[in-house]
Amino acid sequence: LQSRLPQVGTTIFSTMSALAAQHGAVNLGQGFPDFGCDPRLVDAVNEAMRAGQNQYPLMTGVPALREAIAAKIETLYGRRYDAATEITVTAGATQALTTAILCCVHPGDEAIVIEPAYDSYAPAIVLAGGTVVPLEMEVGAQGYSVPWAKVAAAVTPRTRLIVINSPHNPTGSILRRADLDALASIVEDTGILVLSDEVYEHMVYDGERYQSVASHPVLAERSFVVSSFGKTYHVTGWKVGYVAAPAALSAEFRKVHQYNVFTVNTPMQHGLAAYMRDPAPYLGLSGFYQHKRDLFRAGLAGTRLQLLPADGTYFQCVDYRAVSSLPEAEFAQWLTTELKVAAIPVSAFYSSGRESGIVRFCFAKEDATLRLALERLAAI
Amino acid sequence: LQSRLPQVGTTIFSTMSALAAQHGAVNLGQGFPDFGCDPRLVDAVNEAMRAGQNQYPLMTGVPALREAIAAKIETLYGRRYDAATEITVTAGATQALTTAILCCVHPGDEAIVIEPAYDSYAPAIVLAGGTVVPLEMEVGAQGYSVPWAKVAAAVTPRTRLIVINSPHNPTGSILRRADLDALASIVEDTGILVLSDEVYEHMVYDGERYQSVASHPVLAERSFVVSSFGKTYHVTGWKVGYVAAPAALSAEFRKVHQYNVFTVNTPMQHGLAAYMRDPAPYLGLSGFYQHKRDLFRAGLAGTRLQLLPADGTYFQCVDYRAVSSLPEAEFAQWLTTELKVAAIPVSAFYSSGRESGIVRFCFAKEDATLRLALERLAAI
Ligand SMILES: CSCCC(=O)C(=O)O
Ligand SMILES: CSCCC(=O)C(=O)O
Repeated sequence: LQSRLPQVGTTIFSTMSALAAQHGAVNLGQGFPDFGCDPRLVDAVNEAMRAGQNQYPLMTGVPALREAIAAKIETLYGRRYDAATEITVTAGATQALTTAILCCVHPGDEAIVIEPAYDSYAPAIVLAGGTVVPLEMEVGAQGYSVPWAKVAAAVTPRTRLIVINSPHNPTGSILRRADLDALASIVEDTGILVLSDEVYEHMVYDGERYQSVASHPVLAERSFVVSSFGKTYHVTGWKVGYVAAPAALSAEFRKVHQYNVFTVNTPMQHGLAAYMRDPAPYLGLSGFYQHKRDLFRAGLAGTRLQLLPADGTYFQCVDYRAVSSLPEAEFAQWLTTELKVAAIPVSAFYSSGRESGIVRFCFAKEDATLRLALERLAAI
Repeated sequence: LQSRLPQVGTTIFSTMSALAAQHGAVNLGQGFPDFGCDPRLVDAVNEAMRAGQNQYPLMTGVPALREAIAAKIETLYGRRYDAATEITVTAGATQALTTAILCCVHPGDEAIVIEPAYDSYAPAIVLAGGTVVPLEMEVGAQGYSVPWAKVAAAVTPRTRLIVINSPHNPTGSILRRADLDALASIVEDTGILVLSDEVYEHMVYDGERYQSVASHPVLAERSFVVSSFGKTYHVTGWKVGYVAAPAALSAEFRKVHQYNVFTVNTPMQHGLAAYMRDPAPYLGLSGFYQHKRDLFRAGLAGTRLQLLPADGTYFQCVDYRAVSSLPEAEFAQWLTTELKVAAIPVSAFYSSGRESGIVRFCFAKEDATLRLALERLAAI
């Protein structure tokens, strides 16, 4: 059997989680919390199951959940998406991203991917028959930034899609208003669409206001905006996310969605719809994680690991070149097997495998877990 | 935005369910039960959530569930699939089917689809860049059958996949051992793979023994076998299914799966694993539904609707040509809006839209629901 994805192996996240388990390492690799969700959320799902909400929901998602999503986006970002025609509930953000790519990238089309990048974008583009055009962020003392002039120069008549991600995994950087404006001036008056991965939208630090693509009229008109309840509510295993997009884009999204997963877990959707009535959990998330970020950064400050800025997400990148000259994957393995703290090599997020001497830690962990990891990293 | 799936509208199932709701019709259209699942299954999921099983499971699925699936297949069909490398849990059977197609159909490949066919196969083949080669079942007094000589004649050097489905939606027919042998002789010593949709495997009537492709050594070697917990356990909204395939095929399946949905709802998987320990629910399912089939058939016997055989699934097809000369979609609409009983036109399952004067009813309903529908159909 000839492979459709010959380059693909097991994701780095699965690999490092397995290695961490094997060596009893504190797992700061794969991005998921080691603490539980709000018991009220579990109660809400349980109630939905007991109430018999266990059969197919609408293909597009449970109406109450779509309405709650539309209301949240309007309150936070000022754009009104029509819950009936512009919001679709997905089996996690990864399914939303892949489905969005499959519905708009035609064979021969090019898709610009800003790297480092989450590892699902490129295989989805390849499956669609498209060509991945990787474009690297620049990294300096101020951290990572997108060189928009280079993005503009990478556009060709075949460019169909630009994939962006803010707050950014793995770098923890965020796009500011000027970034969105720069992107808008590239795509305005073209047929280029934008896929905006916003799964960390509720984790932005130091009082910054999150700039969703939904808040930018020029971009919102041509964008698929993707988010995730797993990240926001500490239930990465529930696999519920959504895509918000103008009606014409949502119509194409739904054509693929209905034959990809058809629809999404009913009781989880009802539970999430009930739980979303209280905005406190997502409004408080940045504060909750900023405490953990600060704890983790303070602990690493005394080591030879150089901290990069962490403006959003629950990831902290460090430059380890003062410690070791190992390639990133080997350094991450060494950290995992010798120091017993798992991390992710940032090279895994580059199609070129580019080495920059940087690994990523996930700080979505109990304070006690972070302290244990810091003890183990103290001698570095 | 140019469509990737220009032919696609809303699925007939969503359309007829909406029409049924609008007209207060008894919904015998879309295939889902109007009764609840076993409360012990809900308990098991609730326990998993309370125990904190809410983060990413392994990409391939919760090990206990994969092992329970492998054990069930071995007991019922005599083939041992390795739970680690040959079973993958999916976000429902539709996702399994689409992912299997995306992982093996290359641009330019042909895929033979036996029609009438479930409506997700063809769009998935188109998305993969393949060509759908539809092949129609024959229908006579004995019901529907697959003309294997015609299937053999449809094979070309570009044929990559044959999609089969037994028990068959919408016709209720089943493939018997001779059918599997005929298929085996077509694919043996070729590079052709088989995608076997077996979501109704536990609904086979009149003492027939179900012939899974997993039980046929020649076919199992080259097949993706797909099934669904939603159909078997009356939880169509939970969206958990699985694919069983030899390691080499499973490896390709997982490459696409991990970038399509990455993984599947954790607490549902744990709940299903615990619930599967008791084989009684699935072993008793054929008896449970045979009673409903018989009740429904007996009720229709006095009408001018001609009953086709219903050897498996929870669907009953009827030939209505003695009643009306309307095309199927219009007859189904008339039934829904005038008699207040929703059905599905079988023409929706043909790429040609072929009209044969047959509609499909779903009898996965409370006896009282079936009786109400029968009352409304009595005058026909
Ligand atoms: C889907 S597993 C990876 C989780 C994640 O988003 C990450 O660790 O980057
Ligand atoms: C996925 S909705 C359709 C359910 C079903 O299998 C059917 O009605 O045929």
